[in-house]
Amino acid sequence: MTLQLVDHHCHAVHGGELPDDVFASWLTESDRSPAAGTSPWDSSLGLAVRRWCPPVLGLEPWAGPEAYLARRRELGAAAANSRLLQAAGLAEVLVDTGLDGPGLLAPADLAAQAGAGWREVVRVEAVAERLQGTTAEHWARDVAAALAATGATAFKSVAAYRCGLDLPGERPSPAEVANAAGDYLGAGGGRLTHPVLIRQLLWTALESGRPLQLHTGFGDPDVTLHRADPSLLTPFLRAVEPLGVPVVLLHGWPYHRQAAWLAQAFPHVYADLGLTLGHVGPAAPRVLGEALELAPFGKLLFSTDAYGLAELYLVGSRNFRAAVQEWAGGAHLPQAEADRIARLIGCENARRVYGLTP
Amino acid sequence: MTLQLVDHHCHAVHGGELPDDVFASWLTESDRSPAAGTSPWDSSLGLAVRRWCPPVLGLEPWAGPEAYLARRRELGAAAANSRLLQAAGLAEVLVDTGLDGPGLLAPADLAAQAGAGWREVVRVEAVAERLQGTTAEHWARDVAAALAATGATAFKSVAAYRCGLDLPGERPSPAEVANAAGDYLGAGGGRLTHPVLIRQLLWTALESGRPLQLHTGFGDPDVTLHRADPSLLTPFLRAVEPLGVPVVLLHGWPYHRQAAWLAQAFPHVYADLGLTLGHVGPAAPRVLGEALELAPFGKLLFSTDAYGLAELYLVGSRNFRAAVQEWAGGAHLPQAEADRIARLIGCENARRVYGLTP
Amino acid sequence: MTLQLVDHHCHAVHGGELPDDVFASWLTESDRSPAAGTSPWDSSLGLAVRRWCPPVLGLEPWAGPEAYLARRRELGAAAANSRLLQAAGLAEVLVDTGLDGPGLLAPADLAAQAGAGWREVVRVEAVAERLQGTTAEHWARDVAAALAATGATAFKSVAAYRCGLDLPGERPSPAEVANAAGDYLGAGGGRLTHPVLIRQLLWTALESGRPLQLHTGFGDPDVTLHRADPSLLTPFLRAVEPLGVPVVLLHGWPYHRQAAWLAQAFPHVYADLGLTLGHVGPAAPRVLGEALELAPFGKLLFSTDAYGLAELYLVGSRNFRAAVQEWAGGAHLPQAEADRIARLIGCENARRVYGLTP
Repeated sequence: MTLQLVDHHCHAVHGGELPDDVFASWLTESDRSPAAGTSPWDSSLGLAVRRWCPPVLGLEPWAGPEAYLARRRELGAAAANSRLLQAAGLAEVLVDTGLDGPGLLAPADLAAQAGAGWREVVRVEAVAERLQGTTAEHWARDVAAALAATGATAFKSVAAYRCGLDLPGERPSPAEVANAAGDYLGAGGGRLTHPVLIRQLLWTALESGRPLQLHTGFGDPDVTLHRADPSLLTPFLRAVEPLGVPVVLLHGWPYHRQAAWLAQAFPHVYADLGLTLGHVGPAAPRVLGEALELAPFGKLLFSTDAYGLAELYLVGSRNFRAAVQEWAGGAHLPQAEADRIARLIGCENARRVYGLTP
Repeated sequence: MTLQLVDHHCHAVHGGELPDDVFASWLTESDRSPAAGTSPWDSSLGLAVRRWCPPVLGLEPWAGPEAYLARRRELGAAAANSRLLQAAGLAEVLVDTGLDGPGLLAPADLAAQAGAGWREVVRVEAVAERLQGTTAEHWARDVAAALAATGATAFKSVAAYRCGLDLPGERPSPAEVANAAGDYLGAGGGRLTHPVLIRQLLWTALESGRPLQLHTGFGDPDVTLHRADPSLLTPFLRAVEPLGVPVVLLHGWPYHRQAAWLAQAFPHVYADLGLTLGHVGPAAPRVLGEALELAPFGKLLFSTDAYGLAELYLVGSRNFRAAVQEWAGGAHLPQAEADRIARLIGCENARRVYGLTP
Repeated sequence: MTLQLVDHHCHAVHGGELPDDVFASWLTESDRSPAAGTSPWDSSLGLAVRRWCPPVLGLEPWAGPEAYLARRRELGAAAANSRLLQAAGLAEVLVDTGLDGPGLLAPADLAAQAGAGWREVVRVEAVAERLQGTTAEHWARDVAAALAATGATAFKSVAAYRCGLDLPGERPSPAEVANAAGDYLGAGGGRLTHPVLIRQLLWTALESGRPLQLHTGFGDPDVTLHRADPSLLTPFLRAVEPLGVPVVLLHGWPYHRQAAWLAQAFPHVYADLGLTLGHVGPAAPRVLGEALELAPFGKLLFSTDAYGLAELYLVGSRNFRAAVQEWAGGAHLPQAEADRIARLIGCENARRVYGLTP
């Protein structure tokens, strides 16, 4: 556990006491109520929480949900969060600040509890949706200025949710963008789904020189899974290759092998298993192994994609650490090689891609 | 072996003596003659039959096909079927009666030999194809009446074979249905492939309040695999969510991860690995594990999808039992947790979804 | 190691001394320079080279790249190649002669160094691109004559790279072909990408009665991955089934399960994991196992897809041998069964498909 990880994609956690059903709702990507007779605890992610978290709060592994939540309340949310976050062993966190809600800790508070440094990842769609007083013909310029004005270490896009990843490669023309912006603003703005404007955002973000994270693969019910296959991004990835700016394909599952191949094929493409390694719980070694079939070890980045629960930071960290060692054992690797590869994926690749200093 | 399973999707078995080539033909999804020099026994399903079935007939595991078939004939089909079915440990079977043929046992006889209760699953396409004396404008009404008149515990659709799963979500309008029915009936009826009529059948089935099973993934050469990806059903699944009626995605392979995600995302969606866990033989632990990466344990249902051979009931049952225990071992689960999850998937989820009483 | 393999799909190796960066460039499918701070050695294929090759050159397994390359130079390329090729244990190699370049060994020299027999596999696109003095109306006839005049034991197509695999099934009409040939020749010939001409080539190749190998799945950055899914070939495979000529789906990853199902469904379809089993290194047992979930054991063929480096012959051979034994162990197979299945996949299926005599 001496390896301190760089978590290059994560979110805020809730700082207060949580009702049981709210806690459980963060154990699934579904935003619906669970089907009658079922519980989000009964899942691979639920098992991972029960394996890794109770010992950090002073219980035996596999404590049941009731016992665990009772102990969490006994300690108080602040103490529990602090124990869990510190046990995750994080050197630095890159926090996507695009998910907001009451009770969530500010990134600086999260980082302080984790004993880690922090940077901001900014969602391009959120920046565009907050633009005030722009016009169709100035939308492109104003969005570029707003992105430039952020303190983002990297940008992130949820194009997969908004219009799917089967985007044409070419940069849209100024006239196309102005027309699309006219339609968007004319309809009152709000949630941005216009594929032309999304493409414009992606190009603008990359032209800033800052790495771009792209959601791919599974997520909440709003995503249409096959339209989030990262292979659909190929024309776009080819078109932006000359910019030489890193594009990081997040999550990927069940298309993580596709993301891994893209990371081998294109120098500017990187892959991540953030949301994936947490959710798949005991299957983390296999899924990591599937990504490492083709992904160069210098092109895969650790993250937790944790959101809401400090438990998800610990689960992401422990699943990754256990998975990389189990993978290395199955590959008959010498321990020094296993540790070297764990360092690449766990922190060194992220430092190089985002220009962080240890 | 004390866990008695509910097999929520299976078919009739042949009650008589079988020529060698007919037996072998039930070990593959292909309806073609095997390529020269090859045998369906040389497959993962063939290995599973050779692992699990010979001991039940008094032979050593891994007996060769000739020795096995000779012993089967020595015992007689009725005695062999009875031993195999009882060894499967089934509490209840939900039999899809849409596959017919000479020599197949009636569901009641199958259930009696297995020592299990039984219910009927009715194929919606078969009901529509058997309709007599209907007209274009009355087709929708008559199909609804015919479905309502069945004793089905659940309905099943093979839309994947007929028109693929990339269906629009919306219920077709009465005029669209009447037009399509006019085309279908005008061409003499028969095999139903019209996407509008298939959609109408799916909506009508769900509006009856009975669970709907949908074939997804691999099958015989008639299916075009990528058009059977359950992710293609997403618009339909979103559209029928307000009905609150269970939709069970059968088989899934090689898109079982996609089905698992749909089962997590949508409360009314369930997943199954019936045909899959039999066919993949020694790979059953991995494939079950892949489904359990995202599928909540309350949303996956055991079945055998057995057809023709009593052996396929035993193989499905043994593969499932072995797979769930191996999966749990790999996850370092306490035995009581492993057994609890086996019970959920093996019988309790099906009882809840289909309203069965133990 | 007594099993002598038939490598039914492979390429030339370089006969001379290699600069470090050229050696490394053959460890990835990417034709780009590696991203700053990364090395192609840091990959599953790199690990496989370090596991299997150093002992053949007199070093310990897991020797680092520098030590390995130094020892290789000390021995000289000819001696190193000879040691590596002979250690691969090959009875026969079917060499795709469509990849050319300075310094590559002729197939006869490669085979002599390996102590193996050899045959030629001819790329249909290369034959068509070399045609001289043809016309639009004679293109079909001249291509057929040129293919017939080759000494090919089998043909190969890279349609996946040229136009993707979502091809209509039907044979194009003579008028369509003449029109397309007119467009192609009118534009000066060169790289052939016209889908009508590609289809014509595939049909012509199969009508010669010789097996046809088709690239599917991953490859260099020129391929668009989801358009190389072998499932897209289904209409074409159905259309050519009456010809009864073998079609071998190469590589497949990450769609190797789709290829496996096609090999079960259609008697004339075979699957291969050539490029795949080399690249995935320590994951070879899992990936082989995934293919064997549905592929009949009489329908999967070993190959290395080695190109450039003799190391890739050894890696492909060792990965396959280790994978099949590990797969069999996981399946609890008796050793005699494991060895029998290894022989089928390793040499006997290829002998039957290509009409080779041992």
